[in-house]
Amino acid sequence: MTLDDDWITELCEEGGSAFSLKGRGKLFDQRSKFQHIEVYDTEAYGKLMMIDGFTMLSSRENFLYHEMMSHPALFVHPAPRKVAIIGGGDCGTLHEVLKHDEVEQAVQIDIDEVVTRAAEAHFPELCVSNQDPRARLLFDDGIQWMKDAAPGSLDVIIVDSTDPIGPGEVLFTPEFHAACHRALGAQGLMVQQSESPLIHSDILERLYRSLLDAGFGKVDTLFFPQPIYPTGWWSATIGAKGLDLEDFRQTDVENRGFETRYYNTDIHRAAFAHPEFFKRQRKKWMAQ
Amino acid sequence: MTLDDDWITELCEEGGSAFSLKGRGKLFDQRSKFQHIEVYDTEAYGKLMMIDGFTMLSSRENFLYHEMMSHPALFVHPAPRKVAIIGGGDCGTLHEVLKHDEVEQAVQIDIDEVVTRAAEAHFPELCVSNQDPRARLLFDDGIQWMKDAAPGSLDVIIVDSTDPIGPGEVLFTPEFHAACHRALGAQGLMVQQSESPLIHSDILERLYRSLLDAGFGKVDTLFFPQPIYPTGWWSATIGAKGLDLEDFRQTDVENRGFETRYYNTDIHRAAFAHPEFFKRQRKKWMAQ
Repeated sequence: MTLDDDWITELCEEGGSAFSLKGRGKLFDQRSKFQHIEVYDTEAYGKLMMIDGFTMLSSRENFLYHEMMSHPALFVHPAPRKVAIIGGGDCGTLHEVLKHDEVEQAVQIDIDEVVTRAAEAHFPELCVSNQDPRARLLFDDGIQWMKDAAPGSLDVIIVDSTDPIGPGEVLFTPEFHAACHRALGAQGLMVQQSESPLIHSDILERLYRSLLDAGFGKVDTLFFPQPIYPTGWWSATIGAKGLDLEDFRQTDVENRGFETRYYNTDIHRAAFAHPEFFKRQRKKWMAQ
Repeated sequence: MTLDDDWITELCEEGGSAFSLKGRGKLFDQRSKFQHIEVYDTEAYGKLMMIDGFTMLSSRENFLYHEMMSHPALFVHPAPRKVAIIGGGDCGTLHEVLKHDEVEQAVQIDIDEVVTRAAEAHFPELCVSNQDPRARLLFDDGIQWMKDAAPGSLDVIIVDSTDPIGPGEVLFTPEFHAACHRALGAQGLMVQQSESPLIHSDILERLYRSLLDAGFGKVDTLFFPQPIYPTGWWSATIGAKGLDLEDFRQTDVENRGFETRYYNTDIHRAAFAHPEFFKRQRKKWMAQ
């Protein structure tokens, strides 16, 4: 069957697949200096943001991604006070980060202000913490910002980027990871979205090598559902400096004074379970 | 963008979404007495079977579904000797079940022989155990077969069915679950595919009520990725009779003499982790 013009379709070239949502009209359309940003209303997923034709987030399921990009890392760190988010212009990750009372400062550095303006207008529920006195929103080059950051000045870095093509590409390089490693304190960690375990093992492998080369002593990957991204199955990869990734502040998760829709103690542990095929791949990546 | 005629598209009405794979031609097309069965060659997912326009399985990712429909249940049961598979005409679940040496007999009852003939021709890797002396392939009405089964004659029942519309509908009824309960021994369990946790909570709720009404003392759900089904995130629900679902034969999983691509000890535990929103839903379903 063929879908008519009401449908919004993302094509995944490398996966030979496409994902479509039935639309109810376009709400936003702007070509920024960096990318083409669109927001649609959809029949069943609420609003949908697309960048350069790729699905970014929808109202219905962004909680999965935003919770998993923030809470596992923040509850692994013993005292996450200074957090930097590279990318994350929709502000959903920032909102989750600022649910943590321990966080004293969260800086979000996204190159494209238009993404944040579109989010403020169409995903206001993700932007409710933008006025938090602990939040700082910068529209700048994240890689340069990280190079300029004072050594040891950060506890957690979250790389909430687009795919490693286009503006997001530089965030998958050893140069960037070395800058992150330097900016982290003696105990610090970075977490980066690392695409689909089923079809992007080449990107995961590249990320592992880059993080290990940059000096991260422990590298591990967590998995979660991501309904609007190719294969519906996504990953984030963590590099730890002076920390173990097996432990987390379990009591603090259980006593967290804020609501989550996906994340909890069991999901934290479950997310780090490695599928059998991934165990074999990772063993190779870690050995080299 | 609009996809051209090379693409094979599944429309998910209730989810307002569609999933497409780039095709390389149709290999099989037959209208059986029950349904319309097609097999396509695809660019990136190997072969793809569709039934009545719904994606059933692809070469690339069916291991996720077939492993998770079989191994968790079989490793929870202390001694799974007699297994019945209702549906499962592609024989992939049967193949996983027969990897277990403890299994003495596995009967597969699918209403539609054409599905199995299509699988034998186009998914031969899933049919390698069809000639196993422990296997019995019946093409018959599963609900009637279950009603006629000798009470207490089964250890594990796997309901590997299509969606609860069309021929699969009767498998989501209290009548069927009561028949399963009767057919199971004093210690027995049934596992049934239970759709997407994100968009099918109505079906999950119905299944919980039906299993509890049928007398299953413990009911729980496991989660796994399912790239070609709506939302890419799927579930299977287990009803246990005279058994706990928390324990499983962990040492046997670790010493299993067969290969898996997804399932292992960590994945077993992880699959039973409940997302926060699901915990709240399930609590309500269990209370009524």
